[in-house]
Amino acid sequence: MGKHFSATRSGALCFLSALLTGAVVTAIAARGEPLAQVKAPRFLANDEIALPEDYREWIFISSGLGMSYSAEPQARPEGPRFDNVFVKPESYRGFMKTGKWPDGTMFVMEVRRSKTKDSINNAGSFQDELLGMEAEVKDQARFPSGWGFYAFTNAAKTGKLVPAATTDCQACHSQHGAVENTFVQFYPTLFEVAKKKGTLKEKY
Amino acid sequence: MGKHFSATRSGALCFLSALLTGAVVTAIAARGEPLAQVKAPRFLANDEIALPEDYREWIFISSGLGMSYSAEPQARPEGPRFDNVFVKPESYRGFMKTGKWPDGTMFVMEVRRSKTKDSINNAGSFQDELLGMEAEVKDQARFPSGWGFYAFTNAAKTGKLVPAATTDCQACHSQHGAVENTFVQFYPTLFEVAKKKGTLKEKY
Repeated sequence: MGKHFSATRSGALCFLSALLTGAVVTAIAARGEPLAQVKAPRFLANDEIALPEDYREWIFISSGLGMSYSAEPQARPEGPRFDNVFVKPESYRGFMKTGKWPDGTMFVMEVRRSKTKDSINNAGSFQDELLGMEAEVKDQARFPSGWGFYAFTNAAKTGKLVPAATTDCQACHSQHGAVENTFVQFYPTLFEVAKKKGTLKEKY
Repeated sequence: MGKHFSATRSGALCFLSALLTGAVVTAIAARGEPLAQVKAPRFLANDEIALPEDYREWIFISSGLGMSYSAEPQARPEGPRFDNVFVKPESYRGFMKTGKWPDGTMFVMEVRRSKTKDSINNAGSFQDELLGMEAEVKDQARFPSGWGFYAFTNAAKTGKLVPAATTDCQACHSQHGAVENTFVQFYPTLFEVAKKKGTLKEKY
């Protein structure tokens, strides 16, 4: 499982987005309207973070199947994997107003096994068992780049900070994220918002 | 677009779930706890229904890629399509408590084009343009079977009731839905809940 999950992250799904340490912050939108407050995630000792129990009730951003950023995508005899990305409702509403992520934003990405032939389904893929999770957090006071990445294995309720030096999450998100350090280019509804708000990086 | 969408529906994604006409109802859960109230959808004249403006903030149930229930799935030179299913938060919470859908439940399913090679993605698929939408509604007073299906084309803000006689939505959902008339067998988190609550049909 740990193995599956690391394999998924390496050059593949390591993904998208921001939080304010311990406190609740009121951000001010471009037009001067106050944005909803974003409550900080629960940071734990030893560079760990708590999995929010209700993340499945957060806002769904998008999903993908078998996505890989690697030049030589890994073969998976058991079939490709789905990823589902969720973000806190307050952060989503902040993005809809400004095209940017408020400090305090947390994303959770699920990685799930896919299935094809089952019940009445004859082709294509649907989602199955949870294999692992990742989180991305924006916290400009806590992380040198403003962004932190966490990995959860199995059914773990706590995620471990991925050290910036051991993965390419940080570099890849910073270099290729269409909006800040997040892959908004893969989230069609958010991409349209960023286009209108003028917050896409120049190459997009 | 209309063509794409009908093609998607025929024998493929025609999908899942229930509502109470006009009024707000309080359902009582198995343990006697009152469930959250489910507000009825906005039914319009001429068998139409309003697309809820905030459905992207509803609870995400699951997504699939290229799913087909047909014995001869349609070839799509432009690539397979994603579907995303959302349900009203009150209905989701009702299901989590009871393993059944409260009367008044509405599901919205998006159908989206997929893309493969773009930005830094080299393999697999991510979501793109919206092609159409469907809705399923549980309303035991309004529909003979208790369930109604609506189709939305393009960016339409209203959906049209799919007459039971012209499609196999009704029969297929009633016959193959793992819980009531909904395809819970394709929604891994809900499937587990239904298993625990004992609400799966016998063959599952």
